[in-house]
Order: sequence, then C-alpha cells, then structure tokens
Amino acid sequence: MITVLTGGTGGAKFVDGLSRLLPAEELTIIVNTADDYRWWGLQVSPDLDSITYMLAGILSSARGWGVEGDTFHCLQTMQKLEQPAWFSVGDRDLATHLVRTRLLAEGHRLSQATEIIAGKLGIGARILPMTDDSVETRIKTAEGELGFQEYFVRRSCRDQVHGVRFVGDSRSRPAPGALEAITAAEAVLLAPSNPVTSIGPILSVPGFSDALARTSAPVVAVSPIIGRTAVSGPAANLMAAQGLEPSIVGVVDAYRGFLDMLLVHESDAHAGRKLEREGLEVHAADILMRTNQDRLRVARSALALARRNVVSTAEVE
Amino acid sequence: MITVLTGGTGGAKFVDGLSRLLPAEELTIIVNTADDYRWWGLQVSPDLDSITYMLAGILSSARGWGVEGDTFHCLQTMQKLEQPAWFSVGDRDLATHLVRTRLLAEGHRLSQATEIIAGKLGIGARILPMTDDSVETRIKTAEGELGFQEYFVRRSCRDQVHGVRFVGDSRSRPAPGALEAITAAEAVLLAPSNPVTSIGPILSVPGFSDALARTSAPVVAVSPIIGRTAVSGPAANLMAAQGLEPSIVGVVDAYRGFLDMLLVHESDAHAGRKLEREGLEVHAADILMRTNQDRLRVARSALALARRNVVSTAEVE
Repeated sequence: MITVLTGGTGGAKFVDGLSRLLPAEELTIIVNTADDYRWWGLQVSPDLDSITYMLAGILSSARGWGVEGDTFHCLQTMQKLEQPAWFSVGDRDLATHLVRTRLLAEGHRLSQATEIIAGKLGIGARILPMTDDSVETRIKTAEGELGFQEYFVRRSCRDQVHGVRFVGDSRSRPAPGALEAITAAEAVLLAPSNPVTSIGPILSVPGFSDALARTSAPVVAVSPIIGRTAVSGPAANLMAAQGLEPSIVGVVDAYRGFLDMLLVHESDAHAGRKLEREGLEVHAADILMRTNQDRLRVARSALALARRNVVSTAEVE
Repeated sequence: MITVLTGGTGGAKFVDGLSRLLPAEELTIIVNTADDYRWWGLQVSPDLDSITYMLAGILSSARGWGVEGDTFHCLQTMQKLEQPAWFSVGDRDLATHLVRTRLLAEGHRLSQATEIIAGKLGIGARILPMTDDSVETRIKTAEGELGFQEYFVRRSCRDQVHGVRFVGDSRSRPAPGALEAITAAEAVLLAPSNPVTSIGPILSVPGFSDALARTSAPVVAVSPIIGRTAVSGPAANLMAAQGLEPSIVGVVDAYRGFLDMLLVHESDAHAGRKLEREGLEVHAADILMRTNQDRLRVARSALALARRNVVSTAEVE
C-alpha cells in the first residue's frame, strides 16, 4: 500500500503518475480539504475534485481544475442574475457539488460522499479527505483575513501574506482510515504540493504528524520548490510568510520530524547535499511535470526512492 | 390593475400576450406553486419559472419550459453519476434554482425570492406565488399517490387518475398582496391553465375563492378546454377524475361561485349559449394560441371582455 498526501493541481499530476504505476487497490490518497468552500450554497472541495477528476480521466488538462471540455452556462447566468461569479464552476463540475451537498445534507460524512462519488466515476484508488470536520485555511493580509479561495482565486494571490492559520484544526480528527493508511503503508509520499496551504492543513489535523513520525514506512517528499521558485502557485510567498525559507531548506523545515527522503530538482542537487548532513536523504532528479511522461517519471523516481531502490535519474528513465 | 391567476406553459402564453398589451406596473400574476419540487436538493418552482422566463423573454419557445437555447451538461453528468435525471433542468435554468434555494435558506420567503429573481431579470410586472407556504399536489393512481412532477414528467401522465388532493392547503395562507391584488383589481383573469392542477391549487388556499367572489372586478376565464380536449396537457383526464365534465361545462363548474365571464373557442359557441342560461356570460372567439399574434389576440379578447367592451372576434382582430 502506497499512501500519498496531496493538495490539488500539482499533486494531482503526481497522483496521476502513481496511478499509472500501481494497482488501484494499492493506492490511498489523503487530500487537503481546508480550501473547501461554500459556493452558491453548494459544498465545493477543490482539491478532492481535482484528484477525483484526475483519476477518473476527466480533469481539464488545460486548466488543471474542473472537467475537461466543460461549459460555463450556469456561471454566466449567475453573473446575469448579479450573483458572485468569481469562482469558476463548470456545468458538469456542478453535478459533483450538487451530489456532495445533498449527500452531506442527508447525513453522510465527507469521506463517505467522496467514496460514493469516486465509486460512481469508476475510481479504484481510495481517496480520503484529511478530515470529516471543518478546517478552514485563513490567509492574513493587510486587508484582513481572507478565505483561501478569496486569496487564491478572487484576488489572484496579489495580497502580501502575513501569515496563515487553520480554523478548526485543533478540534478536528483525521478521516476514518487515514492514520491507518499512514501507519500500515509500504511508503508514504508527499506530493509536490504547497507545503503551507496544501500539506500544511493535513499536518494541522491532530494525529497526522505523529503517525508520520511513528510509521515504519519511509516518508518521501517531492519538492514543490525548484531553486527559489514554486513549480506553480503561491507556495514561495506563503512559505516566506510562515517563516519558511522558500527553497528546499524550507520544505525540509516544513516536514521536519518525519521526513526521511526528499526528491529535489537536479538544479538543487548541491543544496540538497548540504541538507543530507542533517541526516536526511536527498536525491536529485528532473521533477518538472509538463507531459504525461514527466508524471510517470517523477512518480517512478519517488516510488523507487521510497522502496529504497534508489536509482539515478538515468536508470529511472 | 389587471390580476391573472395562472399555471405554467399554457398560462404563460396568455400572460405573454397580456404583457404586450399592458404597462408592466398594471399587471399582477398569481402563480400556482403546488407543482414545486425539491430536485437535486434545489427548490424548483416550474410555474413561477415559466412565467418569469416568459416575461424576461428567455423562455424556450420550442419546449415551453426552461431557458431558450439552454444546454443540459449538468443533467447529463448527473446521469453518469447515477443520480435521478428524469426531470430536465438546463444549465442556465439551474442558476435560478440555485439562487432561489439560497434565498430561501437565508430566510427569505418564496414571494421575496420570486421578486428578487424577477428584478434581476428586469421584469416590471409583479409575479406572486399563490402562497409562501408548502402546498403540494398529489395525484391518486392505482400505483398509489404520486407527486405532480412524478405523474406529469416521470410517468408522462400515463396513469389513470382517481383523484387529486393538495397537501397543506388548509394550513396555507395567500402570499402577501395576493388577495389585495384580487380585490383591488380592475379585472381578474383566469389563464387557460389546467383548472384542477394549475388554478385548482390557488383556489385551495383559504381566502382566494372568497376574494374572487367578493371582488367588484369582473372575473374572466379563458377556457383551457376546446370541445372535449385540453388545449395542452392532461387537463381533461384530471377534470374527469375530479368529477368535472372535461368540457367548458366542467370549467364553469370548477370556477362556480365567482366566475363572471368565460371566453370559449368558436366551436364551443353553441354549448356556451346553454351555459349562459345559468346566468354566466360566455363569449366565443378563436382561443388557440400557436403564434405570438394568437397570444395577443386572445389576451386582447379577454381584456376586452373584462372591460365590458365586449367585441366580436372580427373586431378584436
């Protein structure tokens, strides 16, 4: 059993690569839900949806979110009705939110709703929300605290960030099966997702950090940072705001206490060797994922590392 | 002020004709809500929507319901997710249901939600639901009681009907302003809608029948029946099930106690003259509405009757 901790877009590519290498029943994916948002009265779980659509083969490859080839006729009509329209929900995407909202209203937990939706889409891997409880990322800015979607989508990450907190984290519990998936795993992989707002919320749920520290499985992260730049999104800024160096040094700091191995980009090989002196295995490879082949290659590198069959990039390819 | 009582499709054509003849602020439309349906967790008001879309100029002319040129991508996806998909909701149509559902969840009454939606669509006429309370049409069949949409849409009116009842009617109250719109009207018009399941529910709300009997305004109905046939839909069968002759005789019986004038089809002129002996004015005209011109003509005939300027069909045209 391989267990992955992930957010949305970047992590979804990595999960896609893994899903092509592993039998579905050997893959468990624990997903950030602190970006979840009530939109038009519907419960939207952006990261769960990205992972679900990716594994169902319907994620828009151009956008990295939503359903491939979707239309936005409802959204356009909402705009005409003078409703908020800054968060793009496609017409096909809406179906997922309608089903999830109804399942939750009927008393299902988010983990159950997620399993039901994944089942309808024919997904064999296990997708788990990090928690069935409400944990909400809040971004501290000069304009006051913003919800994550307000910061990320509505204001296009333009605000200077002074800090990040997760409302509800201390009272939250891991979703059923999530801790077991870590302790019983052959390997635990941290996708190249934002360490602060994608993996961070998962770690903020009491139990996950302990389970990661206790598990006998190797814990392997793929760096979301190359040099001083996030592969995508605002990770570098958010790391700086949390006192983490926006580099692989900060990634290691974010995962301190449980990280066994870090896969970094070739250009960070030198910086990586310095970190190894602190008792961490760092391996360099080409971790950029532009094509489907790239996803396979990075997933294969991470798996190989995790299985202690450490190979050079050349051998992996 | 002209006040109209109406259901959806057939009534919407008549309302369209009226709206082209009257200043918007002189038109109040009281609409059946007993067909309202909870669908995918959203509050759908089919008759309110047909009237609203008609007055906004966006009702699908081909279908007679929903938004012109709408797509059904959400519906198709719901089907893939193995959700109920027999009730067709278009992607643009969904926006209305999302807005209504949210307004109701926020504590607005249906009449307020209706006014807000109509305002966003630039509608000047006043659209009132018959009630802000829950009244639900139930159709008695050999298969048991069916909701109206189950009978009408899901089972395509194929069941033999043994009776009709309105759950919640005795506890319901007319929407604010509805009774006043009847008592203060210059004329009250009953659209050529189903007397049993479109106008019937309005009359089942305590207060409407009395207001219609008491008002000094003439109460004029346009017959939804020509000969022994409903102009559209299952009106004839439903009338028979309620002990009403499926003819203009049954229409008069349905509206007994308050009807002053009935506009019937030319082919019913002879039958109409017999009814006049009972102290009712019956006028014959071409009441079929196939074209936009037809709608104008029928609306003009009804208005002329109501204003006691009774003219022959030839003069009206």
